[in-house]
Amino acid sequence: MKFRKLGSNKNTMIRVNKIIFLLMVFLGVTLVEAKQHKFEMTIDEVMIKVAPKLDYKVFAFNGQVPAPLIHVKEGDDVEVFVTNNTSTPHTIHWHGFYMTNNWQNDGVPGVTQEVIEAGDSYTYRWKAEKTGSLWYHCHSNVNEHVGVRGMWGPIIVDPIEPTALEKTVTKDVIIMFSTWSSSHADKFGEGGTPSDLVDYFSINGHSFPSTQPIRVKKGDVVRYRLYGAGEGLHSFHPHGHDMLITHKDGLPLAQPYEVDTLLIAPGERYDAIVTMNNPGRWVAHDHFDTHVTNAGKYPGGALLITEYEGIPMDDWYVWKNKVYNADFYFSESMKKGYGMLEQSDFKGAPIERRRRRRSE
Amino acid sequence: MKFRKLGSNKNTMIRVNKIIFLLMVFLGVTLVEAKQHKFEMTIDEVMIKVAPKLDYKVFAFNGQVPAPLIHVKEGDDVEVFVTNNTSTPHTIHWHGFYMTNNWQNDGVPGVTQEVIEAGDSYTYRWKAEKTGSLWYHCHSNVNEHVGVRGMWGPIIVDPIEPTALEKTVTKDVIIMFSTWSSSHADKFGEGGTPSDLVDYFSINGHSFPSTQPIRVKKGDVVRYRLYGAGEGLHSFHPHGHDMLITHKDGLPLAQPYEVDTLLIAPGERYDAIVTMNNPGRWVAHDHFDTHVTNAGKYPGGALLITEYEGIPMDDWYVWKNKVYNADFYFSESMKKGYGMLEQSDFKGAPIERRRRRRSE
Amino acid sequence: MKFRKLGSNKNTMIRVNKIIFLLMVFLGVTLVEAKQHKFEMTIDEVMIKVAPKLDYKVFAFNGQVPAPLIHVKEGDDVEVFVTNNTSTPHTIHWHGFYMTNNWQNDGVPGVTQEVIEAGDSYTYRWKAEKTGSLWYHCHSNVNEHVGVRGMWGPIIVDPIEPTALEKTVTKDVIIMFSTWSSSHADKFGEGGTPSDLVDYFSINGHSFPSTQPIRVKKGDVVRYRLYGAGEGLHSFHPHGHDMLITHKDGLPLAQPYEVDTLLIAPGERYDAIVTMNNPGRWVAHDHFDTHVTNAGKYPGGALLITEYEGIPMDDWYVWKNKVYNADFYFSESMKKGYGMLEQSDFKGAPIERRRRRRSE
Repeated sequence: MKFRKLGSNKNTMIRVNKIIFLLMVFLGVTLVEAKQHKFEMTIDEVMIKVAPKLDYKVFAFNGQVPAPLIHVKEGDDVEVFVTNNTSTPHTIHWHGFYMTNNWQNDGVPGVTQEVIEAGDSYTYRWKAEKTGSLWYHCHSNVNEHVGVRGMWGPIIVDPIEPTALEKTVTKDVIIMFSTWSSSHADKFGEGGTPSDLVDYFSINGHSFPSTQPIRVKKGDVVRYRLYGAGEGLHSFHPHGHDMLITHKDGLPLAQPYEVDTLLIAPGERYDAIVTMNNPGRWVAHDHFDTHVTNAGKYPGGALLITEYEGIPMDDWYVWKNKVYNADFYFSESMKKGYGMLEQSDFKGAPIERRRRRRSE
Repeated sequence: MKFRKLGSNKNTMIRVNKIIFLLMVFLGVTLVEAKQHKFEMTIDEVMIKVAPKLDYKVFAFNGQVPAPLIHVKEGDDVEVFVTNNTSTPHTIHWHGFYMTNNWQNDGVPGVTQEVIEAGDSYTYRWKAEKTGSLWYHCHSNVNEHVGVRGMWGPIIVDPIEPTALEKTVTKDVIIMFSTWSSSHADKFGEGGTPSDLVDYFSINGHSFPSTQPIRVKKGDVVRYRLYGAGEGLHSFHPHGHDMLITHKDGLPLAQPYEVDTLLIAPGERYDAIVTMNNPGRWVAHDHFDTHVTNAGKYPGGALLITEYEGIPMDDWYVWKNKVYNADFYFSESMKKGYGMLEQSDFKGAPIERRRRRRSE
Repeated sequence: MKFRKLGSNKNTMIRVNKIIFLLMVFLGVTLVEAKQHKFEMTIDEVMIKVAPKLDYKVFAFNGQVPAPLIHVKEGDDVEVFVTNNTSTPHTIHWHGFYMTNNWQNDGVPGVTQEVIEAGDSYTYRWKAEKTGSLWYHCHSNVNEHVGVRGMWGPIIVDPIEPTALEKTVTKDVIIMFSTWSSSHADKFGEGGTPSDLVDYFSINGHSFPSTQPIRVKKGDVVRYRLYGAGEGLHSFHPHGHDMLITHKDGLPLAQPYEVDTLLIAPGERYDAIVTMNNPGRWVAHDHFDTHVTNAGKYPGGALLITEYEGIPMDDWYVWKNKVYNADFYFSESMKKGYGMLEQSDFKGAPIERRRRRRSE
């Protein structure tokens, strides 16, 4: 009762506000306004080029593999209106999110919702309670859709209070590992079973030489955000540098540790900070020996090259004339502010013509 | 000499006992009487139902897969009298136990003992020196017997002094992962070789939908005891909750850490504490995409659902009419006190008739 | 200018040296003279015996698998003059080394150098900046050369200041895991592709029973240096003992942790200290059930036996009459001082005759 009276008196209100403000300053509270994001997303049937000799039919979020980066801040509310333009049912699972009092938005068919049928739309709503390296993927027929049809993308939730280590980072590099079975490239509705011959291995949907350089300068502090996005295991080894593992699945480690080779399993995420103090030209790759091949031929697969500024391109350098995409590892997108960030280079090509031919 | 004299005098004995007692109180020693357990065990040839369409011939400890839970306390002495009722040799290895001054009971054929031939019996004796999540399995022809014939079961040794974290646990959930190759389901003496097509993935010997819900209420503190019991790798991801990893192979970690996805390799055990603070209906599953299929069809495999009390069953919920077994994850057995705890629901069916037919 | 004058006066020089010396004592600097090592190495085509029934054609550094141990001290400079006597190109990558201001010696064809063609020689130079369990391997056609042709060997760099834990070690045991595909044993230029049937699993290039015992006495403190040298994953489990994991990839862990089973991925190294306090005869093996078979037959593969001094050999003991090689795990080599240490028992046999036949 007393409070209401105060509220009805303007002068008193101002005084109360001042007290609250001073109290917050005293308590060190930062005033952060949680944003409400509304995104529209489609799921489309397109064809992507995984490797020079491998075109693959995928179910692609907004037509791209990886799916668009969703970059928000801790505490933000997100609404995603998704339309299924494909010929088969899907859902979206928001991997790692707590979905407090909100399990119905967790995206598991038959458990938290019914599938989104071909042609239908659905609205997901969730709050960015958990921070760090999170992701989203289909949860219907995951063996095919996540395993070999590219239905996965990154979500980065910036914490309101980053750790001291995180504050040193100058460049974000998102690396999502997945695998492909060339015998199922051309037909939806198959693949991703234990009998598959898995013969292509990729970073952000591309196999070397279709991957991209990471360009850095001495002094950069790179944070690799490493994702096991598909079916396979990957043993990541950057040459010439150790990695300080700071987060597992978005969660800060009380005791970060250093490695030069890191095993990443399906669904896992590791944040690895690397101080770029060693100018040169260095490969970083999956250390499973077969994973740096394309259809059994070396070099290929999950392999990239880190190029320091100022290192001359030798004539025999395999990427001497590489056409460079600065955003292949989402480094540019991560600087663009919050939202859903699409990338034209990740978009697939339409496969309309083939369909028509079939229905003739 | 002096000591004997004291012993012969009743009054003095009482005084000595009192001194010993006070000394123990002073030193903080808890008086715990180590028990002597004697168990009888058979190994039988039976048929289990791994999945709706997969019956599998197994060598089963006491006729069940998983084998019976052995639940004892630190310091207890255990004797297991085992009779091999199968047609092939076996041994039992007690994985993780120290067997101090007792290596002859370690169960490795040709190294610590000769095999237990078909029809023979053998007595194992060991002390529960190590605590936590341990297990036992055959060590003869392990590729077939452990890999695809179900010869494994849990041993839980309660520590005399649990850690502070352990004391918060209200519910134990034992999850043993293993894999199956359907082409070897029907014939003993084969399977478990590198050329196998591994096409079924299971939790406690069952593939979804033959697994069971974990039923909890808000406020429960669940300890998952996660076992890599068979040949495969498993990347366990419970939706909506992080896991605090507190023990590795029964050994407490000085620095527990949090994850939402955990890789478990053959032979490994992880204790993961999860505070059930997020009411809903949540899947938990192996994140290898092929491991949630049965013979390549999703959903299946190593997948379960956690059901919070009070969440209504939607009409479309896949387990709306599930016949519930509260002890599928050994949660009830773990409350029953110490001993060897059998479960009728894990017992296989006899395969006598088929044998007779063959010998006709 | 002033400094030069001082230098030209003998008495002053002595005084300056004295000051420098006292300064170093004050700063706690240990005077260690970095050595300059010069090694000559060949790459040869030879035949090794992986298992009793498996002879394998390999590209072998100095004719041996594993390649010779390189044992140096922190700060040492190393020069390796390598001659490629095989019929195909190679390079050498020094895994884990920083190669500061020296990326051109990192050994990656097309990125840091051109391949060393058949018949050619090449000189690598590097400084032992990083310490601990490191290694070297070919980086050309790694899927075949590292995966199934034995082109890998250990490098141990002793730190100038070992950790307290390291100082307790009395015996070094180097264990390098790799795998083999018998169908490619006899022909160079093939194998190491995703379609391979991998059917042999080895420790230091040998499958049980061709592995060797680790002989210890009570009180020994053994350091296992565990390497994922080939394509496969390995889950190492020594019976009767826990392992204290102290280093990952040569880097000391701030928080060592104990396990009884450890997963090792390609490229990874773990240092595990085990106190030998439990006399007996104990197996230690890869817990992937198929990895203790040879061509699908148990026992075989990545399995060894630790024999404590004083344990009698039972008549039925599988290694009762084993011909013992004390250096199979490099324990003897590690005591021999610094250098490149070859082992006659790891040398392959010449395959000259077969070649001639083919060219007839």
